Amino acid sequence: MMKKIGFIGLGIMGKPMAKNLLNAKFPLYFYTRRPETETEFVEAGAIACSSPKELASMVDVMITMVPTTHDVEEVIFGKNGIVHTATPGSIVIDMSTISASATKKFAEKLAQHQIDMLDAPVSGGEQGAINGSLSIMVGGKEEVLSKVKKIFSAMGKQIVHIGDHGAGQTAKACNQIIIAETIIAVDEALRLAKKSGVDPAKVREALLGGFAASRVLEVHGKRMLDGNYEPGFKASLHRKDMHLALDEAHHAGVYIPAAKYAMQCIDQLVMKGHSNLDSSAIHLLTEE
Amino acid sequence: MMKKIGFIGLGIMGKPMAKNLLNAKFPLYFYTRRPETETEFVEAGAIACSSPKELASMVDVMITMVPTTHDVEEVIFGKNGIVHTATPGSIVIDMSTISASATKKFAEKLAQHQIDMLDAPVSGGEQGAINGSLSIMVGGKEEVLSKVKKIFSAMGKQIVHIGDHGAGQTAKACNQIIIAETIIAVDEALRLAKKSGVDPAKVREALLGGFAASRVLEVHGKRMLDGNYEPGFKASLHRKDMHLALDEAHHAGVYIPAAKYAMQCIDQLVMKGHSNLDSSAIHLLTEE
Repeated sequence: MMKKIGFIGLGIMGKPMAKNLLNAKFPLYFYTRRPETETEFVEAGAIACSSPKELASMVDVMITMVPTTHDVEEVIFGKNGIVHTATPGSIVIDMSTISASATKKFAEKLAQHQIDMLDAPVSGGEQGAINGSLSIMVGGKEEVLSKVKKIFSAMGKQIVHIGDHGAGQTAKACNQIIIAETIIAVDEALRLAKKSGVDPAKVREALLGGFAASRVLEVHGKRMLDGNYEPGFKASLHRKDMHLALDEAHHAGVYIPAAKYAMQCIDQLVMKGHSNLDSSAIHLLTEE
Repeated sequence: MMKKIGFIGLGIMGKPMAKNLLNAKFPLYFYTRRPETETEFVEAGAIACSSPKELASMVDVMITMVPTTHDVEEVIFGKNGIVHTATPGSIVIDMSTISASATKKFAEKLAQHQIDMLDAPVSGGEQGAINGSLSIMVGGKEEVLSKVKKIFSAMGKQIVHIGDHGAGQTAKACNQIIIAETIIAVDEALRLAKKSGVDPAKVREALLGGFAASRVLEVHGKRMLDGNYEPGFKASLHRKDMHLALDEAHHAGVYIPAAKYAMQCIDQLVMKGHSNLDSSAIHLLTEE
Protein backbone atom coordinates (compact mmCIF):
# COMPACT_ATOMS: atom_id res chain seq x y z
CA MET A 1 0.00 0.00 0.00
CA MET A 2 1.14 3.52 -0.72
CA LYS A 3 2.30 5.58 2.24
CA LYS A 4 0.02 8.35 3.46
CA ILE A 5 1.87 11.65 3.31
CA GLY A 6 1.30 14.80 5.32
CA PHE A 7 2.69 18.00 3.78
CA ILE A 8 3.41 21.20 5.71
CA GLY A 9 4.68 24.28 3.88
CA LEU A 10 2.84 24.82 0.61
CA GLY A 11 4.91 27.78 -0.58
CA ILE A 12 6.67 28.49 -3.88
CA MET A 13 8.60 25.22 -3.67
CA GLY A 14 6.27 23.15 -1.51
CA LYS A 15 3.21 23.61 -3.70
CA PRO A 16 4.59 22.05 -6.90
CA MET A 17 6.35 19.34 -4.87
CA ALA A 18 3.06 18.38 -3.20
CA LYS A 19 1.30 18.49 -6.59
CA ASN A 20 3.81 15.96 -7.90
CA LEU A 21 3.01 13.68 -4.96
CA LEU A 22 -0.70 13.93 -5.83
CA ASN A 23 0.09 13.18 -9.47
CA ALA A 24 1.98 10.08 -8.32
CA LYS A 25 -1.25 9.00 -6.53
CA PHE A 26 0.01 9.30 -2.96
CA PRO A 27 -2.80 9.90 -0.43
CA LEU A 28 -1.99 13.48 0.57
CA TYR A 29 -2.88 15.32 3.78
CA PHE A 30 -1.82 18.91 4.32
CA TYR A 31 -1.84 21.82 6.72
CA THR A 32 -1.88 25.42 5.53
CA ARG A 33 -2.96 28.78 6.94
CA ARG A 34 -3.84 30.18 3.52
CA PRO A 35 -7.56 29.65 2.62
CA GLU A 36 -6.92 29.87 -1.15
CA THR A 37 -4.22 27.17 -0.95
CA GLU A 38 -6.57 25.01 1.12
CA THR A 39 -9.29 25.27 -1.53
CA GLU A 40 -6.80 24.56 -4.33
CA PHE A 41 -5.51 21.37 -2.70
CA VAL A 42 -8.88 20.08 -1.55
CA GLU A 43 -10.11 20.45 -5.12
CA ALA A 44 -7.05 18.53 -6.28
CA GLY A 45 -8.01 15.62 -4.01
CA ALA A 46 -5.97 16.25 -0.88
CA ILE A 47 -7.26 16.29 2.68
CA ALA A 48 -7.00 19.44 4.82
CA CYS A 49 -5.92 19.20 8.45
CA SER A 50 -6.35 21.91 11.08
CA SER A 51 -2.87 21.60 12.61
CA PRO A 52 0.43 19.69 12.27
CA LYS A 53 -0.73 17.73 15.31
CA GLU A 54 -3.94 16.58 13.61
CA LEU A 55 -2.07 15.85 10.39
CA ALA A 56 0.54 13.70 12.15
CA SER A 57 -2.14 11.44 13.62
CA MET A 58 -3.33 10.47 10.12
CA VAL A 59 -0.21 9.77 8.07
CA ASP A 60 2.92 7.59 7.81
CA VAL A 61 5.28 10.26 6.53
CA MET A 62 5.39 13.99 7.29
CA ILE A 63 7.14 16.39 4.92
CA THR A 64 8.10 19.87 6.10
CA MET A 65 9.08 22.58 3.62
CA VAL A 66 9.15 25.81 5.62
CA PRO A 67 11.39 28.89 5.67
CA THR A 68 13.52 28.73 8.83
CA THR A 69 15.05 26.50 11.50
CA HIS A 70 12.61 28.02 13.97
CA ASP A 71 9.63 27.15 11.74
CA VAL A 72 10.73 23.51 11.57
CA GLU A 73 11.12 23.40 15.36
CA GLU A 74 7.65 24.90 15.84
CA VAL A 75 5.98 22.50 13.41
CA ILE A 76 7.61 19.46 15.01
CA PHE A 77 7.90 20.33 18.70
CA GLY A 78 5.55 23.31 19.19
CA LYS A 79 2.23 23.27 21.05
CA ASN A 80 0.42 21.94 17.98
CA GLY A 81 3.43 20.03 16.72
CA ILE A 82 3.81 16.73 14.98
CA VAL A 83 5.57 15.08 17.90
CA HIS A 84 2.46 14.91 20.08
CA THR A 85 0.50 12.55 17.83
CA ALA A 86 2.89 10.98 15.34
CA THR A 87 2.88 7.19 15.58
CA PRO A 88 6.07 5.32 16.44
CA GLY A 89 7.71 4.17 13.22
CA SER A 90 6.52 7.19 11.27
CA ILE A 91 9.02 9.37 9.40
CA VAL A 92 9.60 13.13 9.35
CA ILE A 93 11.27 14.38 6.16
CA ASP A 94 12.45 17.96 6.47
CA MET A 95 13.06 19.35 2.99
CA SER A 96 13.57 22.93 4.20
CA THR A 97 17.02 24.49 4.17
CA ILE A 98 17.93 24.89 7.84
CA SER A 99 20.80 24.51 10.31
CA ALA A 100 22.69 21.20 10.13
CA SER A 101 23.41 21.23 13.87
CA ALA A 102 19.77 21.95 14.79
CA THR A 103 18.77 19.11 12.45
CA LYS A 104 20.94 16.68 14.44
CA LYS A 105 19.21 17.75 17.66
CA PHE A 106 15.73 17.45 16.13
CA ALA A 107 16.55 13.94 14.88
CA GLU A 108 17.75 12.91 18.35
CA LYS A 109 14.65 14.23 20.07
CA LEU A 110 12.37 12.54 17.52
CA ALA A 111 14.23 9.25 17.99
CA GLN A 112 13.18 9.33 21.67
CA HIS A 113 9.60 9.04 20.37
CA GLN A 114 10.56 6.26 17.91
CA ILE A 115 10.06 8.71 15.05
CA ASP A 116 12.66 8.64 12.29
CA MET A 117 13.91 11.79 10.61
CA LEU A 118 15.60 12.59 7.33
CA ASP A 119 16.96 15.97 6.30
CA ALA A 120 16.45 16.29 2.57
CA PRO A 121 17.03 19.82 1.26
CA VAL A 122 16.77 20.32 -2.48
CA SER A 123 18.44 22.16 -5.32
CA GLY A 124 16.89 23.05 -8.65
CA GLY A 125 14.57 25.95 -7.82
CA GLU A 126 10.88 26.44 -8.60
CA GLN A 127 11.32 25.07 -12.12
CA GLY A 128 12.91 21.90 -10.76
CA ALA A 129 10.08 21.57 -8.25
CA ILE A 130 7.47 21.92 -11.02
CA ASN A 131 9.22 19.46 -13.34
CA GLY A 132 9.93 16.97 -10.54
CA SER A 133 13.61 17.21 -11.42
CA LEU A 134 15.00 18.40 -8.08
CA SER A 135 18.34 17.27 -6.76
CA ILE A 136 17.73 15.92 -3.23
CA MET A 137 20.53 15.73 -0.65
CA VAL A 138 19.63 13.28 2.08
CA GLY A 139 20.96 12.97 5.63
CA GLY A 140 19.88 10.24 8.04
CA LYS A 141 19.77 6.46 8.09
CA GLU A 142 20.03 4.70 4.73
CA GLU A 143 17.33 2.15 5.68
CA VAL A 144 14.91 4.99 6.38
CA LEU A 145 15.75 6.56 3.03
CA SER A 146 15.03 3.26 1.28
CA LYS A 147 11.50 3.29 2.79
CA VAL A 148 10.65 6.66 1.22
CA LYS A 149 12.62 6.52 -2.02
CA LYS A 150 9.41 6.39 -4.10
CA ILE A 151 8.26 9.59 -2.44
CA PHE A 152 11.52 11.33 -3.35
CA SER A 153 11.37 9.95 -6.90
CA ALA A 154 8.03 11.71 -7.40
CA MET A 155 9.71 15.06 -6.65
CA GLY A 156 13.31 14.74 -7.79
CA LYS A 157 15.67 13.13 -10.26
CA GLN A 158 18.96 12.90 -8.43
CA ILE A 159 18.62 11.53 -4.90
CA VAL A 160 21.93 11.17 -3.05
CA HIS A 161 22.37 9.77 0.43
CA ILE A 162 25.10 12.06 1.77
CA GLY A 163 25.50 10.68 5.28
CA ASP A 164 24.07 10.78 8.79
CA HIS A 165 21.60 13.36 10.22
CA GLY A 166 22.50 16.89 9.13
CA ALA A 167 24.68 15.75 6.22
CA GLY A 168 21.99 16.74 3.71
CA GLN A 169 21.95 20.26 5.18
CA THR A 170 25.74 20.43 5.06
CA ALA A 171 25.67 19.44 1.38
CA LYS A 172 23.07 22.15 0.77
CA ALA A 173 25.32 24.70 2.50
CA CYS A 174 28.17 23.63 0.18
CA ASN A 175 25.79 23.98 -2.76
CA GLN A 176 24.79 27.51 -1.80
CA ILE A 177 28.34 28.80 -1.28
CA ILE A 178 29.50 27.34 -4.61
CA ILE A 179 26.59 28.99 -6.41
CA ALA A 180 27.24 32.35 -4.72
CA GLU A 181 30.97 32.27 -5.45
CA THR A 182 30.42 31.18 -9.06
CA ILE A 183 27.95 34.04 -9.52
CA ILE A 184 30.71 36.40 -8.34
CA ALA A 185 33.18 34.80 -10.77
CA VAL A 186 30.81 35.15 -13.72
CA ASP A 187 29.93 38.71 -12.69
CA GLU A 188 33.61 39.72 -12.60
CA ALA A 189 34.38 38.07 -15.93
CA LEU A 190 31.44 39.65 -17.77
CA ARG A 191 32.33 43.08 -16.38
CA LEU A 192 35.96 42.63 -17.39
CA ALA A 193 34.83 41.81 -20.93
CA LYS A 194 32.42 44.74 -21.12
CA LYS A 195 34.81 47.35 -19.75
CA SER A 196 37.50 46.08 -22.13
CA GLY A 197 35.15 46.81 -25.02
CA VAL A 198 34.41 43.16 -25.73
CA ASP A 199 30.92 41.69 -26.18
CA PRO A 200 30.21 39.76 -22.96
CA ALA A 201 27.65 37.57 -24.78
CA LYS A 202 30.39 36.31 -27.11
CA VAL A 203 32.66 35.66 -24.16
CA ARG A 204 29.97 33.66 -22.37
CA GLU A 205 29.32 31.65 -25.54
CA ALA A 206 33.00 30.79 -25.99
CA LEU A 207 33.57 30.01 -22.31
CA LEU A 208 30.66 27.57 -22.16
CA GLY A 209 32.78 25.29 -24.37
CA GLY A 210 35.75 25.06 -21.98
CA PHE A 211 36.78 24.58 -18.36
CA ALA A 212 35.02 27.78 -17.26
CA ALA A 213 31.67 26.17 -18.11
CA SER A 214 29.07 25.95 -15.34
CA ARG A 215 25.32 25.98 -14.83
CA VAL A 216 25.79 29.45 -13.31
CA LEU A 217 27.60 30.77 -16.42
CA GLU A 218 24.76 29.32 -18.47
CA VAL A 219 21.75 30.41 -16.41
CA HIS A 220 22.85 33.33 -14.22
CA GLY A 221 25.27 34.59 -16.89
CA LYS A 222 22.31 34.84 -19.26
CA ARG A 223 20.33 36.76 -16.63
CA MET A 224 23.20 39.25 -16.28
CA LEU A 225 23.44 39.75 -20.04
CA ASP A 226 19.68 40.27 -20.33
CA GLY A 227 19.46 42.38 -17.17
CA ASN A 228 16.54 40.15 -16.23
CA TYR A 229 16.64 39.33 -12.53
CA GLU A 230 13.22 37.77 -12.10
CA PRO A 231 13.90 34.95 -9.62
CA GLY A 232 15.09 32.21 -9.94
CA PHE A 233 16.26 32.28 -6.40
CA LYS A 234 15.52 35.39 -4.35
CA ALA A 235 18.45 37.30 -2.86
CA SER A 236 16.74 37.25 0.55
CA LEU A 237 16.64 33.44 0.54
CA HIS A 238 20.19 33.08 -0.73
CA ARG A 239 21.22 35.44 2.07
CA LYS A 240 19.47 33.24 4.63
CA ASP A 241 21.18 30.12 3.26
CA MET A 242 24.60 31.78 3.16
CA HIS A 243 24.13 32.78 6.78
CA LEU A 244 23.51 29.12 7.67
CA ALA A 245 26.61 28.07 5.72
CA LEU A 246 28.83 30.71 7.34
CA ASP A 247 27.47 29.78 10.75
CA GLU A 248 28.30 26.12 10.14
CA ALA A 249 31.78 27.05 8.87
CA HIS A 250 32.33 29.21 11.94
CA HIS A 251 31.50 26.40 14.33
CA ALA A 252 33.47 23.80 12.36
CA GLY A 253 36.46 26.15 12.17
CA VAL A 254 36.63 26.29 8.38
CA TYR A 255 38.32 29.14 6.54
CA ILE A 256 36.08 30.27 3.65
CA PRO A 257 36.91 33.90 2.90
CA ALA A 258 35.52 33.89 -0.65
CA ALA A 259 32.15 32.74 0.63
CA LYS A 260 32.23 35.61 3.12
CA TYR A 261 32.92 38.08 0.34
CA ALA A 262 30.03 36.62 -1.68
CA MET A 263 27.81 37.06 1.39
CA GLN A 264 28.82 40.73 1.60
CA CYS A 265 27.67 41.21 -1.99
CA ILE A 266 24.32 39.52 -1.35
CA ASP A 267 23.95 41.56 1.87
CA GLN A 268 24.52 44.76 -0.08
CA LEU A 269 21.96 43.74 -2.69
CA VAL A 270 19.33 43.09 0.00
CA MET A 271 20.17 46.26 1.94
CA LYS A 272 19.66 48.28 -1.24
CA GLY A 273 16.11 46.95 -1.42
CA HIS A 274 16.58 44.20 -4.02
CA SER A 275 15.70 41.23 -1.81
CA ASN A 276 13.09 39.99 -4.28
CA LEU A 277 15.48 39.91 -7.24
CA ASP A 278 17.47 36.83 -8.20
CA SER A 279 20.76 36.76 -6.30
CA SER A 280 22.68 37.11 -9.59
CA ALA A 281 21.51 40.74 -9.47
CA ILE A 282 24.71 41.44 -7.55
CA HIS A 283 25.85 42.19 -11.13
CA LEU A 284 23.82 45.41 -10.74
CA LEU A 285 25.84 46.59 -7.75
CA THR A 286 29.12 46.89 -9.58
CA GLU A 287 27.60 47.90 -12.89
CA GLU A 288 26.13 51.02 -11.35
CA MET B 1 45.15 24.44 -52.47
CA MET B 2 45.83 23.94 -48.80
CA LYS B 3 47.56 26.78 -47.03
CA LYS B 4 51.19 26.30 -46.02
CA ILE B 5 51.51 26.70 -42.27
CA GLY B 6 54.55 27.71 -40.23
CA PHE B 7 54.44 26.71 -36.55
CA ILE B 8 56.54 28.31 -33.82
CA GLY B 9 56.32 27.02 -30.24
CA LEU B 10 56.23 23.23 -30.13
CA GLY B 11 55.72 22.92 -26.37
CA ILE B 12 53.21 20.91 -24.32
CA MET B 13 50.28 22.52 -26.16
CA GLY B 14 51.94 23.40 -29.47
CA LYS B 15 53.20 19.92 -30.23
CA PRO B 16 49.85 18.10 -30.30
CA MET B 17 48.24 21.07 -32.07
CA ALA B 18 50.89 20.91 -34.83
CA LYS B 19 50.47 17.14 -35.03
CA ASN B 20 46.77 17.63 -35.70
CA LEU B 21 47.62 20.01 -38.55
CA LEU B 22 49.90 17.34 -40.03
CA ASN B 23 47.15 14.74 -39.63
CA ALA B 24 44.82 17.09 -41.53
CA LYS B 25 47.41 17.09 -44.37
CA PHE B 26 48.46 20.73 -44.10
CA PRO B 27 52.00 21.35 -45.44
CA LEU B 28 53.79 22.17 -42.18
CA TYR B 29 56.96 24.20 -41.61
CA PHE B 30 58.32 24.73 -38.13
CA TYR B 31 61.03 26.38 -36.08
CA THR B 32 62.30 24.91 -32.83
CA ARG B 33 65.48 25.12 -30.75
CA ARG B 34 65.11 21.57 -29.40
CA PRO B 35 66.95 18.98 -31.56
CA GLU B 36 64.74 16.08 -30.39
CA THR B 37 61.60 17.97 -31.38
CA GLU B 38 63.17 18.79 -34.74
CA THR B 39 63.88 15.10 -35.42
CA GLU B 40 60.37 14.12 -34.29
CA PHE B 41 58.63 16.56 -36.64
CA VAL B 42 60.91 15.97 -39.63
CA GLU B 43 60.17 12.27 -39.31
CA ALA B 44 56.47 13.09 -39.20
CA GLY B 45 56.78 14.89 -42.53
CA ALA B 46 57.23 18.54 -41.55
CA ILE B 47 59.96 20.88 -42.78
CA ALA B 48 62.45 22.41 -40.34
CA CYS B 49 63.41 26.10 -40.64
CA SER B 50 66.42 27.76 -39.02
CA SER B 51 64.58 30.89 -37.81
CA PRO B 52 61.13 32.55 -37.71
CA LYS B 53 62.45 34.77 -40.51
CA GLU B 54 63.25 31.82 -42.78
CA LEU B 55 59.95 30.15 -41.89
CA ALA B 56 57.92 33.25 -42.72
CA SER B 57 59.36 33.40 -46.26
CA MET B 58 57.95 29.97 -47.08
CA VAL B 59 54.38 29.93 -45.73
CA ASP B 60 50.94 31.57 -45.96
CA VAL B 61 50.02 31.37 -42.30
CA MET B 62 52.25 31.59 -39.24
CA ILE B 63 51.07 30.18 -35.90
CA THR B 64 52.78 31.22 -32.67
CA MET B 65 52.24 29.27 -29.44
CA VAL B 66 54.86 30.61 -27.03
CA PRO B 67 54.88 31.40 -23.28
CA THR B 68 54.90 35.20 -22.92
CA THR B 69 54.02 38.53 -24.51
CA HIS B 70 57.74 39.19 -24.87
CA ASP B 71 58.27 35.87 -26.72
CA VAL B 72 55.54 36.75 -29.22
CA GLU B 73 57.10 40.18 -29.78
CA GLU B 74 60.53 38.62 -30.32
CA VAL B 75 59.25 35.99 -32.77
CA ILE B 76 57.36 38.59 -34.82
CA PHE B 77 59.44 41.76 -34.59
CA GLY B 78 62.86 40.58 -33.31
CA LYS B 79 66.08 40.47 -35.34
CA ASN B 80 65.13 37.10 -36.84
CA GLY B 81 61.42 37.82 -36.71
CA ILE B 82 58.58 36.96 -39.03
CA VAL B 83 57.97 40.55 -40.07
CA HIS B 84 61.14 40.83 -42.15
CA THR B 85 60.20 38.21 -44.74
CA ALA B 86 56.46 37.51 -44.44
CA THR B 87 54.66 38.22 -47.70
CA PRO B 88 51.88 40.83 -47.84
CA GLY B 89 48.56 39.05 -47.43
CA SER B 90 49.95 36.41 -45.12
CA ILE B 91 48.39 35.85 -41.71
CA VAL B 92 49.90 35.61 -38.22
CA ILE B 93 47.78 33.61 -35.76
CA ASP B 94 48.94 34.02 -32.18
CA MET B 95 47.50 31.20 -30.09
CA SER B 96 49.59 32.03 -27.00
CA THR B 97 47.97 33.58 -23.95
CA ILE B 98 49.37 37.11 -23.81
CA SER B 99 48.40 40.71 -23.12
CA ALA B 100 45.30 41.97 -24.97
CA SER B 101 46.67 45.51 -25.23
CA ALA B 102 50.04 44.33 -26.61
CA THR B 103 48.10 42.19 -29.09
CA LYS B 104 46.33 45.29 -30.41
CA LYS B 105 49.70 47.02 -30.94
CA PHE B 106 51.20 43.97 -32.66
CA ALA B 107 48.22 43.77 -35.02
CA GLU B 108 48.57 47.47 -35.88
CA LYS B 109 52.29 47.16 -36.62
CA LEU B 110 51.75 44.05 -38.76
CA ALA B 111 48.99 45.82 -40.69
CA GLN B 112 51.58 48.39 -41.80
CA HIS B 113 53.28 45.49 -43.60
CA GLN B 114 49.98 44.25 -45.04
CA ILE B 115 50.15 41.26 -42.74
CA ASP B 116 46.91 40.25 -41.01
CA MET B 117 46.84 39.07 -37.42
CA LEU B 118 44.42 37.06 -35.32
CA ASP B 119 44.69 36.44 -31.60
CA ALA B 120 43.36 32.95 -30.93
CA PRO B 121 44.11 31.70 -27.42
CA VAL B 122 42.68 28.34 -26.45
CA SER B 123 41.05 26.55 -23.54
CA GLY B 124 40.91 22.81 -22.98
CA GLY B 125 44.43 21.94 -21.84
CA GLU B 126 46.86 19.33 -23.13
CA GLN B 127 44.09 16.75 -23.46
CA GLY B 128 42.04 19.11 -25.59
CA ALA B 129 45.10 19.83 -27.73
CA ILE B 130 45.71 16.11 -28.27
CA ASN B 131 42.05 15.36 -29.06
CA GLY B 132 41.69 18.40 -31.30
CA SER B 133 38.81 19.52 -29.10
CA LEU B 134 40.12 22.91 -27.98
CA SER B 135 37.87 25.90 -27.50
CA ILE B 136 39.37 28.75 -29.57
CA MET B 137 38.60 32.41 -28.79
CA VAL B 138 39.34 34.57 -31.79
CA GLY B 139 40.04 38.31 -32.01
CA GLY B 140 40.57 40.14 -35.30
CA LYS B 141 38.74 40.61 -38.58
CA GLU B 142 35.99 38.13 -39.35
CA GLU B 143 37.03 37.90 -43.03
CA VAL B 144 40.54 36.88 -41.95
CA LEU B 145 39.08 34.26 -39.61
CA SER B 146 37.02 32.83 -42.46
CA LYS B 147 40.23 32.28 -44.49
CA VAL B 148 41.77 30.09 -41.76
CA LYS B 149 38.70 28.37 -40.32
CA LYS B 150 39.84 24.98 -41.67
CA ILE B 151 43.12 25.37 -39.81
CA PHE B 152 41.28 26.05 -36.55
CA SER B 153 38.91 23.14 -37.19
CA ALA B 154 41.89 20.78 -37.25
CA MET B 155 42.80 21.84 -33.71
CA GLY B 156 39.58 22.78 -31.98
CA LYS B 157 35.87 22.10 -31.74
CA GLN B 158 34.38 25.36 -30.63
CA ILE B 159 35.66 28.35 -32.58
CA VAL B 160 34.09 31.66 -31.54
CA HIS B 161 34.80 35.04 -33.12
CA ILE B 162 34.75 37.26 -30.04
CA GLY B 163 35.52 40.64 -31.63
CA ASP B 164 38.32 42.86 -32.88
CA HIS B 165 42.06 42.49 -32.18
CA GLY B 166 42.72 41.57 -28.55
CA ALA B 167 39.16 40.36 -27.91
CA GLY B 168 40.30 36.73 -27.97
CA GLN B 169 42.85 37.51 -25.28
CA THR B 170 40.24 39.33 -23.20
CA ALA B 171 37.96 36.29 -23.43
CA LYS B 172 40.86 34.10 -22.32
CA ALA B 173 41.46 36.41 -19.34
CA CYS B 174 37.77 36.04 -18.43
CA ASN B 175 38.13 32.28 -18.78
CA GLN B 176 41.12 32.13 -16.45
CA ILE B 177 39.57 34.23 -13.70
CA ILE B 178 36.36 32.18 -13.76
CA ILE B 179 38.34 28.95 -13.49
CA ALA B 180 40.46 30.30 -10.62
CA GLU B 181 37.45 31.61 -8.70
CA THR B 182 35.48 28.41 -9.26
CA ILE B 183 38.44 26.38 -7.97
CA ILE B 184 38.31 28.50 -4.81
CA ALA B 185 34.56 27.92 -4.51
CA VAL B 186 34.92 24.14 -4.86
CA ASP B 187 37.88 24.13 -2.47
CA GLU B 188 35.87 25.96 0.21
CA ALA B 189 32.82 23.74 -0.23
CA LEU B 190 34.76 20.48 -0.01
CA ARG B 191 36.61 21.67 3.10
CA LEU B 192 33.34 22.75 4.70
CA ALA B 193 31.94 19.27 4.07
CA LYS B 194 35.03 17.49 5.40
CA LYS B 195 35.38 19.55 8.55
CA SER B 196 31.67 19.08 9.24
CA GLY B 197 32.24 15.33 9.18
CA VAL B 198 30.52 14.80 5.83
CA ASP B 199 31.98 12.80 2.93
CA PRO B 200 33.09 15.42 0.36
CA ALA B 201 32.85 12.84 -2.44
CA LYS B 202 29.12 12.42 -1.76
CA VAL B 203 28.68 16.18 -1.68
CA ARG B 204 30.43 16.57 -5.05
CA GLU B 205 28.26 13.81 -6.51
CA ALA B 206 25.03 15.42 -5.32
CA LEU B 207 26.06 18.93 -6.34
CA LEU B 208 26.91 17.87 -9.90
CA GLY B 209 23.16 17.37 -10.37
CA GLY B 210 22.17 20.95 -9.52
CA PHE B 211 23.00 24.61 -10.05
CA ALA B 212 26.43 24.24 -8.40
CA ALA B 213 27.52 22.01 -11.30
CA SER B 214 30.59 23.05 -13.26
CA ARG B 215 33.48 21.55 -15.20
CA VAL B 216 35.69 22.64 -12.28
CA LEU B 217 33.56 20.77 -9.72
CA GLU B 218 33.76 17.75 -12.00
CA VAL B 219 37.46 17.79 -12.94
CA HIS B 220 39.28 19.85 -10.29
CA GLY B 221 36.91 18.70 -7.55
CA LYS B 222 37.92 15.12 -8.39
CA ARG B 223 41.60 16.08 -8.19
CA MET B 224 41.05 17.55 -4.72
CA LEU B 225 39.26 14.42 -3.52
CA ASP B 226 42.01 12.17 -4.89
CA GLY B 227 44.82 14.49 -3.76
CA ASN B 228 46.19 14.05 -7.29
CA TYR B 229 47.54 17.34 -8.59
CA GLU B 230 49.34 16.13 -11.71
CA PRO B 231 48.64 18.93 -14.19
CA GLY B 232 46.26 19.62 -15.88
CA PHE B 233 47.23 23.24 -15.85
CA LYS B 234 50.36 24.21 -13.94
CA ALA B 235 50.06 26.74 -11.13
CA SER B 236 52.94 28.77 -12.63
CA LEU B 237 51.03 29.17 -15.90
CA HIS B 238 47.73 29.96 -14.21
CA ARG B 239 49.63 32.59 -12.20
CA LYS B 240 50.99 34.12 -15.40
CA ASP B 241 47.52 34.23 -16.96
CA MET B 242 45.92 35.70 -13.82
CA HIS B 243 48.56 38.41 -13.83
CA LEU B 244 47.56 39.29 -17.40
CA ALA B 245 43.89 39.37 -16.41
CA LEU B 246 44.50 41.56 -13.34
CA ASP B 247 46.68 43.88 -15.42
CA GLU B 248 43.91 44.22 -17.99
CA ALA B 249 41.34 44.82 -15.25
CA HIS B 250 43.57 47.45 -13.66
CA HIS B 251 43.91 49.40 -16.90
CA ALA B 252 40.23 49.05 -17.77
CA GLY B 253 39.24 50.15 -14.25
CA VAL B 254 37.31 47.00 -13.38
CA TYR B 255 36.65 45.96 -9.79
CA ILE B 256 37.37 42.21 -9.46
CA PRO B 257 38.30 41.53 -5.82
CA ALA B 258 37.49 37.81 -5.88
CA ALA B 259 39.90 37.31 -8.79
CA LYS B 260 42.55 39.11 -6.75
CA TYR B 261 41.97 36.81 -3.82
CA ALA B 262 42.23 33.77 -6.13
CA MET B 263 45.52 35.19 -7.41
CA GLN B 264 46.81 35.43 -3.83
CA CYS B 265 46.08 31.73 -3.34
CA ILE B 266 47.86 30.76 -6.58
CA ASP B 267 50.76 33.04 -5.61
CA GLN B 268 51.03 31.29 -2.26
CA LEU B 269 51.01 27.88 -3.93
CA VAL B 270 53.83 28.89 -6.27
CA MET B 271 55.85 30.58 -3.51
CA LYS B 272 55.64 27.36 -1.49
CA GLY B 273 57.36 25.55 -4.35
CA HIS B 274 54.32 23.93 -5.99
CA SER B 275 54.52 25.73 -9.33
CA ASN B 276 54.46 22.44 -11.27
CA LEU B 277 51.29 21.16 -9.62
CA ASP B 278 47.84 21.76 -11.06
CA SER B 279 46.45 25.07 -9.82
CA SER B 280 43.65 23.22 -7.99
CA ALA B 281 46.40 22.26 -5.51
CA ILE B 282 45.46 25.45 -3.65
CA HIS B 283 43.28 22.92 -1.81
CA LEU B 284 46.55 21.80 -0.16
CA LEU B 285 47.22 25.23 1.33
CA THR B 286 44.18 25.34 3.53
CA GLU B 287 44.10 21.62 4.21
CA GLU B 288 47.49 21.77 5.89
